[in-house]
Amino acid sequence: MATIGVLGAGQLGRMLALAGVPLGHRFVFVDPSEGSPAAAVGEQLTCAYTDRVGLEQLARADVVTYEFESVPLEAAEALAPRVALYPPPEALRIAQDRLLEKTCFRELAIRTAEFEAVSSREELERAVEQIGFPCVLKTRRMGYDGKGQSVLRTRGDLGLAWDTVRREPSILESFVPFERELSVLAVRSRTGETAFYPVVENHHAEGILRKTVSPAPHLTEALQRGAESYATRLMDRLGYVGVLALELFELGGGLVANEFAPRVHNSGHFSIEGSHTSQFENHLRAILGLPLGATGALSPSVMLNLVGDLPSVEAVLAIPDAHLHLYGKTPRPARKIGHVTVRAARSEELAARVTRLEGVLAATQK
Amino acid sequence: MATIGVLGAGQLGRMLALAGVPLGHRFVFVDPSEGSPAAAVGEQLTCAYTDRVGLEQLARADVVTYEFESVPLEAAEALAPRVALYPPPEALRIAQDRLLEKTCFRELAIRTAEFEAVSSREELERAVEQIGFPCVLKTRRMGYDGKGQSVLRTRGDLGLAWDTVRREPSILESFVPFERELSVLAVRSRTGETAFYPVVENHHAEGILRKTVSPAPHLTEALQRGAESYATRLMDRLGYVGVLALELFELGGGLVANEFAPRVHNSGHFSIEGSHTSQFENHLRAILGLPLGATGALSPSVMLNLVGDLPSVEAVLAIPDAHLHLYGKTPRPARKIGHVTVRAARSEELAARVTRLEGVLAATQK
Repeated sequence: MATIGVLGAGQLGRMLALAGVPLGHRFVFVDPSEGSPAAAVGEQLTCAYTDRVGLEQLARADVVTYEFESVPLEAAEALAPRVALYPPPEALRIAQDRLLEKTCFRELAIRTAEFEAVSSREELERAVEQIGFPCVLKTRRMGYDGKGQSVLRTRGDLGLAWDTVRREPSILESFVPFERELSVLAVRSRTGETAFYPVVENHHAEGILRKTVSPAPHLTEALQRGAESYATRLMDRLGYVGVLALELFELGGGLVANEFAPRVHNSGHFSIEGSHTSQFENHLRAILGLPLGATGALSPSVMLNLVGDLPSVEAVLAIPDAHLHLYGKTPRPARKIGHVTVRAARSEELAARVTRLEGVLAATQK
Repeated sequence: MATIGVLGAGQLGRMLALAGVPLGHRFVFVDPSEGSPAAAVGEQLTCAYTDRVGLEQLARADVVTYEFESVPLEAAEALAPRVALYPPPEALRIAQDRLLEKTCFRELAIRTAEFEAVSSREELERAVEQIGFPCVLKTRRMGYDGKGQSVLRTRGDLGLAWDTVRREPSILESFVPFERELSVLAVRSRTGETAFYPVVENHHAEGILRKTVSPAPHLTEALQRGAESYATRLMDRLGYVGVLALELFELGGGLVANEFAPRVHNSGHFSIEGSHTSQFENHLRAILGLPLGATGALSPSVMLNLVGDLPSVEAVLAIPDAHLHLYGKTPRPARKIGHVTVRAARSEELAARVTRLEGVLAATQK
């Protein structure tokens, strides 16, 4: 079967391989951190993403993908002419730069926050006048899990905000007074076949995803269609192949796009147990040009991230239909070291299980 | 987390590791065949099961188990005083010898075929007179997938039958004119907690399992309770820890025990997608003393083995809710190289998917 090369060997790579080994494939990961989570289920080449020898080995794979979007663009661009590489580097280029991303949304008539590019203190002043308070200043590049961003409520916040983004090229966005955070996972195969998972509801704390509810409560046909329409426009524009995650705000019954990730995504982890086909398997089917698997909800489910410390494994596993996923990472504050998905056919039962699980996690999670 | 040592690195070991890696565990396999299926998801020590260095390494694991019952008993017995080893060697000793196994059934009042020990041509003659035709001669040891057994219908069959068992110590059993073949998967944790999967219906051809239907059609409460009662008696007698598979015949509405396997079992593969918790995860939970996972049917499902050649992967994956499992083995006639489980909530839909899958497999399976 196929050898699948992956830039990055974190938990997403690990879960890709756990989905791909049963399909008969083998995995080669490139990652600079020794003993990364994916090394348990494939071969890890421990080197820089741009290392010539590492790229040489990946170029010999049948297909190459990446599992986090901060992979240096030049690594993807060096590989693309030599080996089938999905998602396309263009998706990476745009996702790595918030200004390009928001501009792309705007061009595709995907509703998003107002925004202005900011590359100096003077531009920040002008952008604030344009957009008004409250607003959010974010670095254009390399921000994730709430890092490199600052909310501005008054003119007095400008100095600190400009320091928080380390005076780097940034983007000022209007603050979206959203009712809730949602996301949609979309997938497109090399053959052009597309599929969408039900829209899910996400809960963040300190900029880190803590909880995903699948399907999103009170999900309407209009919301689902709206999210699919946005994702389709993006995938068409990017010539996309693979799983794409689009993070959304719900506002006044409509959808506002926040950002997209050109990869499998934390808010899609529920799909391992909660869908007929996991996002990991569907990403692999897509990049291999195989028929996509069904994306409907198998059961209502809730995913809770394990952040910081390990909870009592015994207490977690004592909860009916709770599914533990540990990534083999050393616990440390604010670090995602695993997740748990609970399922139940009836919503009261699911709520009771989630409450119990949250109680177990409360003892150790920070 | 734990290091889990496994005697054997075939597909059962591979699926154990695919279930155990997400729980944070690592796996060390001992197997004489280089590049065995489980090597993709753990470390393989390629040596004889009784190799001193291999056993030394396994003895340093947190817990040791085995994935096929033809592991030399002395390997298990050498390890048992040094490391937690489950299931207990006593289970292996009895399962490896059809005479001990049938005697054990009889002692536990588990209904089974009539049987007589046979260690010479003369004893065979006497046993045939005792049991009558039709009857089945089987070697006491090392028979599986229909090897080393012969059906006798007339006195004229004695000579060939005695040659078929290579004149080795054997057992003559009355032929059970069963209505269908069933099995039950039971699991008992180190803590004493037990759980049972719904009884499944199995279909064999040429002595090889081809199809498992879960739950068994027309499964009555009485059949389920009967199977659980047999399995409980066995587990109590053996001081059992882990998953145990008990193969049964249905005869006149009652159950006749055929044999048991002290390990995860081919007829339990449906549980990966068809149950709330797979047999592989529950075996690991059991030997680690963790709470057992729910064993109820998540959805009706049918498992088909891939025997011989690889089918069209594309055609298999195009079937809704079909789940492909390849073992990384080189195809050859009569070799199990993978399986496919299909699910559907409604029975007509499931039947349609199975028919479609059987059509896909018919092109390549022998």
